Amino acid sequence: MDERVREHAEVLVDWSARVEAGDDVVVSVAEDAHELGVAVAEALGERGATVTTLYGSDEFSRAYLKGAEARADGDDAPAFDTDPAVDRAIFEAADAYLRIGGGRNTTATADVDRATRQAYARARQGVREARMDTDWVSTVHPTRSLAQQAGMAYEEYREFVYDAVLRDWESLAEEMARMKYILDAGEEVRLVTERDDAPDTDISMSIAGRTAVNSAASVAYDSHNLPSGEVFTAPYDTEGEAFFDVPMTIDATRVRNVRLAFADGEVVDFAAETGEDALASVLDTDAGARRLGELGIGMNRGIDRFTDSILFDEKMGDTVHMAVGRAYDACLPAGESGNDSAVHVDMITDVSADSRLEVDGEVVQRNGTFRWEDGFAGDGE
Amino acid sequence: MDERVREHAEVLVDWSARVEAGDDVVVSVAEDAHELGVAVAEALGERGATVTTLYGSDEFSRAYLKGAEARADGDDAPAFDTDPAVDRAIFEAADAYLRIGGGRNTTATADVDRATRQAYARARQGVREARMDTDWVSTVHPTRSLAQQAGMAYEEYREFVYDAVLRDWESLAEEMARMKYILDAGEEVRLVTERDDAPDTDISMSIAGRTAVNSAASVAYDSHNLPSGEVFTAPYDTEGEAFFDVPMTIDATRVRNVRLAFADGEVVDFAAETGEDALASVLDTDAGARRLGELGIGMNRGIDRFTDSILFDEKMGDTVHMAVGRAYDACLPAGESGNDSAVHVDMITDVSADSRLEVDGEVVQRNGTFRWEDGFAGDGE
Repeated sequence: MDERVREHAEVLVDWSARVEAGDDVVVSVAEDAHELGVAVAEALGERGATVTTLYGSDEFSRAYLKGAEARADGDDAPAFDTDPAVDRAIFEAADAYLRIGGGRNTTATADVDRATRQAYARARQGVREARMDTDWVSTVHPTRSLAQQAGMAYEEYREFVYDAVLRDWESLAEEMARMKYILDAGEEVRLVTERDDAPDTDISMSIAGRTAVNSAASVAYDSHNLPSGEVFTAPYDTEGEAFFDVPMTIDATRVRNVRLAFADGEVVDFAAETGEDALASVLDTDAGARRLGELGIGMNRGIDRFTDSILFDEKMGDTVHMAVGRAYDACLPAGESGNDSAVHVDMITDVSADSRLEVDGEVVQRNGTFRWEDGFAGDGE
Repeated sequence: MDERVREHAEVLVDWSARVEAGDDVVVSVAEDAHELGVAVAEALGERGATVTTLYGSDEFSRAYLKGAEARADGDDAPAFDTDPAVDRAIFEAADAYLRIGGGRNTTATADVDRATRQAYARARQGVREARMDTDWVSTVHPTRSLAQQAGMAYEEYREFVYDAVLRDWESLAEEMARMKYILDAGEEVRLVTERDDAPDTDISMSIAGRTAVNSAASVAYDSHNLPSGEVFTAPYDTEGEAFFDVPMTIDATRVRNVRLAFADGEVVDFAAETGEDALASVLDTDAGARRLGELGIGMNRGIDRFTDSILFDEKMGDTVHMAVGRAYDACLPAGESGNDSAVHVDMITDVSADSRLEVDGEVVQRNGTFRWEDGFAGDGE
């Protein structure tokens, strides 16, 4: 076994999930993530944890949903159990949940009706919430399928993944703490981009009373992705327009060049150069799907290219992303509910040039360079 | 997908597990059983069941147990949680459990210490009992690893599996009902073999008050294997000696030509031509491991050869098997406990020649031919 697979497992178990002896850990393993799963199982045995392994296969999901469609016989979207007893029991009993992605085909569910997938997502919302109440962490094992999605050779993609994952997380956490400090103290964020080759972005949102997460790839930082390397918060009262130029995949559909227009905190107009139907479908999921649940600042400069994977793309330095849908509880005052939705879909904009990010009127990042970095251009235009 | 894979899934879900709309079904999928798992997922979607999929990987088990050994640092066998919260919750909430075997290496756990495996088996006894309280069914997807264990080509092995699994189960159930009737009415079973090329068997056991299971590969018959095709009961007060000439694998060790001597219901002497240590280890697991938990009569003539897999071997026509260890509740009067143990290890003897099986002194099967079949030689020698 490649020593980096073991290192990945150790970062996941120790730094990210903070597993301790006696913890009940649930691991979900995708079809081609077997090797990392083996390394994780060994690490969990060493730590004295108890492990239950789920098989996270998109081909199983497709088959199950197609079966449900056949049962519904085309009249309506299939009905699903809204309180699945076993899955609820699993996540109510689990201390930690480690999701290891890495299937054989990133478009394995492409021929399942959107209405079916949405009905399933709605039915599973309770399970999703129970899962998010655990110390959950999501990562991927580098597979050929993900390499293909990234447009990379397999060996090249493995290098990319381990460069992003096997980092000095403590140092990155210290740098990100600066951004968290600014956002926690701030009340309003404004992002402006004025590029010649793209529609302008000029969007403002309130962050007063919200807490930013220093997403340092560890549950100790309320951070649940490995790799991570972003600072995010839960905005509200969004106004203005934003353009998202980084391509993404929604429900197996390629979506490019999204524009969203907000008024009174809600999406009032939208467009996409390709994949507009998939975008529309997301926004129609429920009321919360039209409001922002997240504003995130990518700060992981170990990630040096877009790979059509939100796990990596949104963490890349010189990017800002916003998600429609569900807000993370960690950003909210204790006991307060944020934006609620069955979906959470991130959209990314490149801020490496002709951009500025302001907090309460002060420029924090200009053209990708932060206030505390060499070369920062100051507050003037 | 081979149409027989779909048929296998349908037999498993409908005939074997009797899944109905609204059932919470847990499926465990081995490393190379993906294809049958997909077909099962589709069938469960069609039936309106809810599904949770576990990954049943022997390589994961090995890694976890090796990790636990490293933690224990060689002093003693590792300690394991005797009440694993997640696994217990899963099987307490599940209506049905479908275990689909078919790994990549049948000896994947060969280098784990026996003491470790036994400690783990003891710790998991509560989970095992919760699992057996569901409508559980165990089957296998034909894999190259199982073909290799059987000494067969892959295509040849696939034919073998589907011949055994895709049968007219209702007809076989009717024939097996005759044997169940005889065992239910009987009080003592005696098996005698007198072959020139093997040690004699002459063993007697009480079955008074016990109920035989017509194991017709369906939970409706208290039968939990697919394929099945045996009638079994839970004997006690075993006396005499038995020789088991069908090779088997215990804990990844090949065991051949086992002899067991019983007095007062317990094994008082034992030997094996090869693998005696593995046999000794089984018998030393706990007190119940030295008593019989099962007597079974193989009646599936669709299985025409031994393949070093207990799932198939013990069902083959012209064989009788006995298991040391745990008895199945279905054979016991309501509320009564049978032989209790963390293990259940079957041993098989060929009764195709020079043999007779008696119930209360009457010959029921001679040289493999049952009383109700053409060519039965009657009660005389």
